[in-house]
Amino acid sequence: MQADKYQIDFTKGENGLVPAIAQDWTSREILMIAYMNEEAFVKTASERVAYYFSRSKQRIWKKGESSGHIQIVKEILIDCDQDAIVLLVEQVGKAACHTGYNSCFYRRLNNSGELEIIKNEKVFDPETVYKNTSKDF
Amino acid sequence: MQADKYQIDFTKGENGLVPAIAQDWTSREILMIAYMNEEAFVKTASERVAYYFSRSKQRIWKKGESSGHIQIVKEILIDCDQDAIVLLVEQVGKAACHTGYNSCFYRRLNNSGELEIIKNEKVFDPETVYKNTSKDF
Repeated sequence: MQADKYQIDFTKGENGLVPAIAQDWTSREILMIAYMNEEAFVKTASERVAYYFSRSKQRIWKKGESSGHIQIVKEILIDCDQDAIVLLVEQVGKAACHTGYNSCFYRRLNNSGELEIIKNEKVFDPETVYKNTSKDF
Repeated sequence: MQADKYQIDFTKGENGLVPAIAQDWTSREILMIAYMNEEAFVKTASERVAYYFSRSKQRIWKKGESSGHIQIVKEILIDCDQDAIVLLVEQVGKAACHTGYNSCFYRRLNNSGELEIIKNEKVFDPETVYKNTSKDF
């Protein structure tokens, strides 16, 4: 499976990386945003589970490789400029964020101009899930 | 209104830019992704309409400045790493994409590994809307 077949232009992103947004395929909530290089994209499209490229660790990672909270890919959408991706996913474990919230976007700016947490509770306890592993993945 | 109040770390993005995802606040469809520098973010938060930073033109742009299809900001969400933004917006004109489709993500990878258009029709005709102006904004 060749990435160029899908007309994604990885050269448009910084360091060959394009943003990939994971969205819950039923609730349509945005779960997280990360980056993909061509290899991560091809693995994602082939295996139908999400792989990203870590800018901090400079390597490919499989979402959920530490936590077990993998993302099963239901649909892959490509944008008009061919430099951004949306993954519609089934989030295993119900939580995408390493903090334990279901979404990384668990805070909003309120009318007073302050950040407030909008989620009722964490889905899991990070201290338990990431006990002996990287807390990032 | 100061950006640092919201704890967004613009230094984490390439060239001081962080990704900003515009999502329809009622349908929850992802409309587009663009980038913000601190100035674009402060203007967006203050005026409650979306401003982005164009990497190609190297300047701030108000979404809809050419087309009239501005984005009225209903909520601003910040991610766990403090380097990504979701705007829940009311999309004026019903279309975010310069191609005329309501969303920039109007194509998906089908089961045969090919891109296919998933939208029934364009909301507007780009040749009419952008007749004498930049087709980007």
